[in-house]
Amino acid sequence: MSNCIFCAIVAGRAPASVVLDEPDVIAFMDIRPFTPGHLLVIPKRHASGLAELPPEDGAKVFAAGQRIAAALRASDLPIDGVNMFLADGVAAGQEVFHVHLHLVPRRAGDGFGIVARAQSPNRTVLDGTASALRAAVEAYRS
Amino acid sequence: MSNCIFCAIVAGRAPASVVLDEPDVIAFMDIRPFTPGHLLVIPKRHASGLAELPPEDGAKVFAAGQRIAAALRASDLPIDGVNMFLADGVAAGQEVFHVHLHLVPRRAGDGFGIVARAQSPNRTVLDGTASALRAAVEAYRS
Ligand SMILES: [Zn+2]
Ligand SMILES: [Zn+2]
Repeated sequence: MSNCIFCAIVAGRAPASVVLDEPDVIAFMDIRPFTPGHLLVIPKRHASGLAELPPEDGAKVFAAGQRIAAALRASDLPIDGVNMFLADGVAAGQEVFHVHLHLVPRRAGDGFGIVARAQSPNRTVLDGTASALRAAVEAYRS
Repeated sequence: MSNCIFCAIVAGRAPASVVLDEPDVIAFMDIRPFTPGHLLVIPKRHASGLAELPPEDGAKVFAAGQRIAAALRASDLPIDGVNMFLADGVAAGQEVFHVHLHLVPRRAGDGFGIVARAQSPNRTVLDGTASALRAAVEAYRS
């Protein structure tokens, strides 16, 4: 897709510090890392979001992310954990509209974290929410 | 695995508000939601972390997460985006040692977000980091 910076990286028209290059997936350093080693795994084929992503590409992206995460944790690098993060939609903080899975290497005191408003709904509320979500998923399938 | 709360949910020995139940994957509400509708997608087969997770189970977890996220965004529910999040290891904030993919429905002003120390390494630094990570990934494969 023209004007897509990640498609430009895939095509070799934009610079990237590449960690993994496979037939359908490429992984490279995020230029604004959350922590040292923060990288992105993307499908080579353009997809703006999860709804457009062919499931087989999603599976390959996740498999590459899983393998990289396990490799980094098993290495001698100062990496004690890994977070995966993905933003789908502007409201979720997505900024580049080519699906990308963030891999964020972690160690104690690295300053990375999640903020959220704590909630503790009771089981009746949880069941009601689950019912609404289940209906949405079933409607989407059929 | 005994003592695993998610295995107990899979076995029907612990309560859960289920959104999706497939042969190898189950999705249910998080009891401490980050936002309304926050749910978890897990493999039914126990795996403590990404290194132990069979890649085919990982692919199914991601595919289910992808489909649920797309369904929620396409629905009439007040969901404008979705974040996926996964913690691998104590240092990454993992608390239940059975792999789980968080799906966090998003809308403007919901209070959910990421905190990180901003970094802007130059290309030389990025290339050096990529080289170290690439070596770790290649060592892990062979
Ligand atoms: Zn693209
Ligand atoms: Zn378990």
